[in-house]
Amino acid sequence: MESIITPQPHRLVSSGSEHPVQSSTPALAGTSDGGSSPPSHHLSTPEEISSFVDQMDTFIFDCDGVLWLGNDTIKGAPEFLHELVAKGKRIIYVTNNSSKSRKTYVGKFKKLGFPAEPDNIFGSAYAAAYYLKNMLNFPADKKVYVVGMQGIVDELAEMGIQAVGAGDDNAPLQETEFENGTLGPDESIGAVLLGFDSQINYRKYAKAFTYLTANKGKVHFLATNEDRTYPISGSIYPGTGSLLAALIHSVNRRPDAVLGKPSQNMMNTILERFHLDPARTCMVGDRLDTDIAFGKLGKLHTLLVMTGVTSVEERDAKKGPVTAEYWIESVGHLRQR
Amino acid sequence: MESIITPQPHRLVSSGSEHPVQSSTPALAGTSDGGSSPPSHHLSTPEEISSFVDQMDTFIFDCDGVLWLGNDTIKGAPEFLHELVAKGKRIIYVTNNSSKSRKTYVGKFKKLGFPAEPDNIFGSAYAAAYYLKNMLNFPADKKVYVVGMQGIVDELAEMGIQAVGAGDDNAPLQETEFENGTLGPDESIGAVLLGFDSQINYRKYAKAFTYLTANKGKVHFLATNEDRTYPISGSIYPGTGSLLAALIHSVNRRPDAVLGKPSQNMMNTILERFHLDPARTCMVGDRLDTDIAFGKLGKLHTLLVMTGVTSVEERDAKKGPVTAEYWIESVGHLRQR
Repeated sequence: MESIITPQPHRLVSSGSEHPVQSSTPALAGTSDGGSSPPSHHLSTPEEISSFVDQMDTFIFDCDGVLWLGNDTIKGAPEFLHELVAKGKRIIYVTNNSSKSRKTYVGKFKKLGFPAEPDNIFGSAYAAAYYLKNMLNFPADKKVYVVGMQGIVDELAEMGIQAVGAGDDNAPLQETEFENGTLGPDESIGAVLLGFDSQINYRKYAKAFTYLTANKGKVHFLATNEDRTYPISGSIYPGTGSLLAALIHSVNRRPDAVLGKPSQNMMNTILERFHLDPARTCMVGDRLDTDIAFGKLGKLHTLLVMTGVTSVEERDAKKGPVTAEYWIESVGHLRQR
Repeated sequence: MESIITPQPHRLVSSGSEHPVQSSTPALAGTSDGGSSPPSHHLSTPEEISSFVDQMDTFIFDCDGVLWLGNDTIKGAPEFLHELVAKGKRIIYVTNNSSKSRKTYVGKFKKLGFPAEPDNIFGSAYAAAYYLKNMLNFPADKKVYVVGMQGIVDELAEMGIQAVGAGDDNAPLQETEFENGTLGPDESIGAVLLGFDSQINYRKYAKAFTYLTANKGKVHFLATNEDRTYPISGSIYPGTGSLLAALIHSVNRRPDAVLGKPSQNMMNTILERFHLDPARTCMVGDRLDTDIAFGKLGKLHTLLVMTGVTSVEERDAKKGPVTAEYWIESVGHLRQR
């Protein structure tokens, strides 16, 4: 593995980087007081930006807060991504949103002007399907009980995995159903997979609970992600992690695997599927605790953008749990002008 | 306060009782190896049982697992309770089930042959209403947002407290509703109260979340109880505590008060409302971690019955967290024959 350090005009690293090829490189930019969280380096000049981009083969982008905010595109982001494609760089979009399949997501990307194919998109629903198929060798004669939405069902179907639940169980529970065995065990269920579900109800919780407890140890317990909240259209609502908390509490057991950011499962799956060289890959995100932590987990380079949830105070916190290697105002600022 | 010890034929106490008048009394029955959990004393002879009953003015009964199992009455239980009434003893029924009001519950008690009036019944829905009215002086111009069922709404109405949510919000959320402000803040909400809700849905979670987070510190957060599971008709389903876990996780905050067993709030409310003398009151239950722990919290006498969830192994565990003062096979065995 070659060093990727470009010594001028600034060395594009900060002290204490987790990246192995940089681990002995002292910081030249920013200040350091010897604390455990080195400061993030600001990509500020055209030369720095150009050098940074040249060092990478692959860019992994978080979506909301990085490429768009709700339905509003971040200024200059589509143009920068088209520049990357023109330079032969690989683009991967990573999202914890499990409500839509990759195929459905392509529509959103194209509508907002971003280059996209299903294979560029790595959603937590796809990650869960990939994990079931390739890591667990999920048996063809078993079914996955899905607490979640169509995106998960579609991704499982693409992998040839049978799913039940989801939309079929959207009807609220009737009182008599407690007593007539509707919610009883089902030997054909081999996994319970929970994702975001705006149609969550007691029927789904009771079924998932029954499958996980009736056939102890034999039913895999998976979740697409654990985001505590779900920001949408300028509001914040309970996220997948909150819906998951109810199921965890009732079965008194953590999921066997959580597939979304910042889990190691998702990173391993991405690295394996795309055969990436971490030393030439950069994770671009707006959240330190998920996106940037996720990039560091895979020993990738990390770039924080300030168009999402992270404040200047959090970015500059010397004692914060996670620091990005680089930061820039927005993805649009990366354009070569 | 007089000693209630009757020295023959057995002293009806076990070592280490939390009851103040017994704290220095050594155990005469059972074995003790000096561990922190003294063994429970078995009420086995007619004389012991008679002496035990004579020492009490008030019996507080847990219901499911003690008086009935689902729809099946525990043999001899109604007859024993009628004996108690004939002797002038006070009977209080305590239940964490918040789905029915006390008035509705009376029907179930009478149908199964138990003596009952609404004032005998102390449900967690009533406890929550009592707490809002008498402990929090809940303002008349504010409303309680209820994630729960009719029992809570009825008990709040009896106290003159306005409730919204519950059955009115049973319809699943439509996708467009995320975006049109249906789930926005509401200044008229002064408390969020969560109880068992077989019609739980995302609309209710999102509203409760919004009220608790939009008006921070000004909206009380209450729950009727925290039972992890809900046993019904021979099956087990997720309980109130599991539904609550989702809300706790999303708002990142514990409730200000949980009203049901084994919380100190419910015990204080019972002691205050009925002016009980703990030294002449016995809590009768089938669960060590809720019923018996609850009785000990109020420094009441405690009697474990073996008709519910507690196994012989748990009853006899020397290292268990809670030991009942007495145990007997069933409430029916307390009858004077």
